[in-house]
Amino acid sequence: MTAKLKPAARVRGQRQDVWSVVNEAAAASPVQPIVNMGQGFFGYNPPDFILNAAKESLDRVDCNQYAPTRGRPRLKKALADAYSPFWGRTLNPDTEITITTGANEGMLSAFMAFIEPGDEVIVFEPFFDQYISNIEMAGGKVVYVPMHPPKEGAVKTLSAAEWTIDFDEFERAITPRTKMVVINTPHNPVGKVFSADELKRIASLCLEHQILILSDEVYDRLYYVPFTRIATLSPEIESITLTVGSAGKNFYATGWRVGWLIGPPHLIQYVAAAHTRICYSSVSPLQEACAIGFEQADARGFWDESIRSMKRKMDLFNAVWRELGVPYSEPEGGYFVMVNLSKVQIPDGYEFPPHVASRPRDFRLAWFLIHELGVAAIPPSEFYTDANAHIVEDYLRFAVCKPDEVLEEAKERLRGLKKYLKAE
Amino acid sequence: MTAKLKPAARVRGQRQDVWSVVNEAAAASPVQPIVNMGQGFFGYNPPDFILNAAKESLDRVDCNQYAPTRGRPRLKKALADAYSPFWGRTLNPDTEITITTGANEGMLSAFMAFIEPGDEVIVFEPFFDQYISNIEMAGGKVVYVPMHPPKEGAVKTLSAAEWTIDFDEFERAITPRTKMVVINTPHNPVGKVFSADELKRIASLCLEHQILILSDEVYDRLYYVPFTRIATLSPEIESITLTVGSAGKNFYATGWRVGWLIGPPHLIQYVAAAHTRICYSSVSPLQEACAIGFEQADARGFWDESIRSMKRKMDLFNAVWRELGVPYSEPEGGYFVMVNLSKVQIPDGYEFPPHVASRPRDFRLAWFLIHELGVAAIPPSEFYTDANAHIVEDYLRFAVCKPDEVLEEAKERLRGLKKYLKAE
Ligand SMILES: Cc1ncc(COP(=O)(O)O)c(C=O)c1O
Ligand SMILES: Cc1ncc(COP(=O)(O)O)c(C=O)c1O
Repeated sequence: MTAKLKPAARVRGQRQDVWSVVNEAAAASPVQPIVNMGQGFFGYNPPDFILNAAKESLDRVDCNQYAPTRGRPRLKKALADAYSPFWGRTLNPDTEITITTGANEGMLSAFMAFIEPGDEVIVFEPFFDQYISNIEMAGGKVVYVPMHPPKEGAVKTLSAAEWTIDFDEFERAITPRTKMVVINTPHNPVGKVFSADELKRIASLCLEHQILILSDEVYDRLYYVPFTRIATLSPEIESITLTVGSAGKNFYATGWRVGWLIGPPHLIQYVAAAHTRICYSSVSPLQEACAIGFEQADARGFWDESIRSMKRKMDLFNAVWRELGVPYSEPEGGYFVMVNLSKVQIPDGYEFPPHVASRPRDFRLAWFLIHELGVAAIPPSEFYTDANAHIVEDYLRFAVCKPDEVLEEAKERLRGLKKYLKAE
Repeated sequence: MTAKLKPAARVRGQRQDVWSVVNEAAAASPVQPIVNMGQGFFGYNPPDFILNAAKESLDRVDCNQYAPTRGRPRLKKALADAYSPFWGRTLNPDTEITITTGANEGMLSAFMAFIEPGDEVIVFEPFFDQYISNIEMAGGKVVYVPMHPPKEGAVKTLSAAEWTIDFDEFERAITPRTKMVVINTPHNPVGKVFSADELKRIASLCLEHQILILSDEVYDRLYYVPFTRIATLSPEIESITLTVGSAGKNFYATGWRVGWLIGPPHLIQYVAAAHTRICYSSVSPLQEACAIGFEQADARGFWDESIRSMKRKMDLFNAVWRELGVPYSEPEGGYFVMVNLSKVQIPDGYEFPPHVASRPRDFRLAWFLIHELGVAAIPPSEFYTDANAHIVEDYLRFAVCKPDEVLEEAKERLRGLKKYLKAE
């Protein structure tokens, strides 16, 4: 290919990403098959009432054709009905909600709608990796503020609440070019649910400096402590906030690619305009199924059941860490758990391929677990900048949204860690 | 909202687009319901074998979760098998094909992969409107080259082949910054299938100047004359060409949002990288259904039947123009027909709202047909730059991918035009 045909800088020569590092390691492991607790997809199906709704939608001509660019009216209505109680007022389905192709493209639409080249966006570390490329695609500059794990995280199991923002660091990151801050609660990978107090402090700085808030709440139906939505703290905060949701996470259907943003009309209209240019419209029959899902979920007790069953999986799985005396951050929400493996001693001279050896210790830990035990987890330093990667170099992230048999098999394998654990 | 929170230029203050002009006119018409021959969605369902495949996929756990970012292996394989005969060699499903969220996001991915700010992209008029915002989103500059309708288009029905590119105009549009040219065959809205000769002339200029070719072939299964794919003309041309396809168009399911790009590995890898950043992955269960669609379509005679049934609809509908003595461009492919309504005399003093009155005559024609006859069609000057809009100001675009009853009702209503026709 001649130089003239070369790809754009935005897609050129990136470091191999964590997903392909982990997938390649899994494929190359002597232990097969791998128990995959890496990526956050569900190991089981959406509930029948939603699957049946999807199948019935496929019989309807209008459901197989282009949805309106802002989404099918029934889904917007069902979302307005489902979220109005949290907002404490009636949301307008036509002006305050827009449907996107998963939360992912929803966030890209928000960045495309508001970020001009040179604008700054504050992102907390660890971050969901797509934020970064999405902000950069809009020409934005990412400004990072690290979350700090509990000081005693290496020796004690503590609540994920103990991961904290240093508000001085946050305030120092704000400049006249700061256009937006991205928050994520319940948090991936930390499992923290931001407290109302923390959210108020973030929001009051945003109001003071006129900064938009993009609140990624894709795990909003999985919380094990009280959950506050930042948009609902006050009408002023609501007026600068876009809230992101995901049917993939809500309904155990990450492959359906249905997401949405909720926000005031003066923000949503531009998100919808950007979305139209990116994807035109989102998958139509599965939007209809999600509408039916929201219409019926409460009456069927689905949300409560969802929390109960995920919390049970969380406890079931984490028992192995208690058994081993390995500390973790007790999740307040979501389906990820961060485990501190500082006690694991990788044998001297253990060989890693160069692209793993050159990364922080958590990459080597992930490789080691895959090769010695056949269990895949995600090294979270991928979700920090190089300068801050050391903060999480002893942690691995495990996804527990898997069938019980898989969790049991993982536990059995992880018991094999015992012989590598440092004595206390 | 304070100035600091204002939206990005890319989504600000655009002119009302043709879709909302037409939809609003339809809603406001005294004739209700409107017969909508405007937007190109199908008025009937995908065939049962594909719908059933979709329903069965919904029962499979893996089909409901994230697909690989480049697409489900079965779909890539089915596409490779389906397209290898056209390419005259075996396509590699893992390196030469990538799945996208409709052709639309596929094209955006191609622009994001190769266009740097300031790069130029040549687009022929009339264009598919999303090209423009997608190129601009990547920072590209659109350079327009008009297609010219047949000289006698106002008085005679001629083949859509008679819409032509002036190759001198094309060559003059090429500069050292030209990175890509977008072609579309079978063409929306013109109905032209570019001849092998025309494609060779375009390709040889692209090879000479090292310009990428993005060939939008979403109507590739609907041609009524021999259809040539530019990528298959020579290995050199293939090496600079990305071909775009759409399951939505192929399988009568525009709402499914499954598309793809085929091209050499050195191009596809960057398109896939951009797609990952935009949407992460595309709708999983419907990818599986499309895989099954491609596996079975040939044996079931679906592609032949598809051509036969659309061509029949085309002839059925266009009979009304022959009856009325109104000339049109006889489509060589696709499901749109461009009709020349220069003979229609809009009564003196007929009132149009300002946003219609200020646009070229085709907008007024569209409004007039909606209000007087209750038939909606699309004014194609929307798909030309202002400078060239006059070229199509007597044309309207009708979509014939509708049930026969709808076509018959449209014809009956369009007979009402007779009293507005100028005597010859
Ligand atoms: C924090 C966070 N935001 C957004 C997403 C993307 O959600 P979706 O699958 O709806 O695009 C994920 C998925 O893992 C996530 O963890
Ligand atoms: C020429 C052309 N390209 C691309 C598209 C978009 O196709 P998809 O629905 O697969 O995104 C269309 C849809 O009308 C089209 O007419």
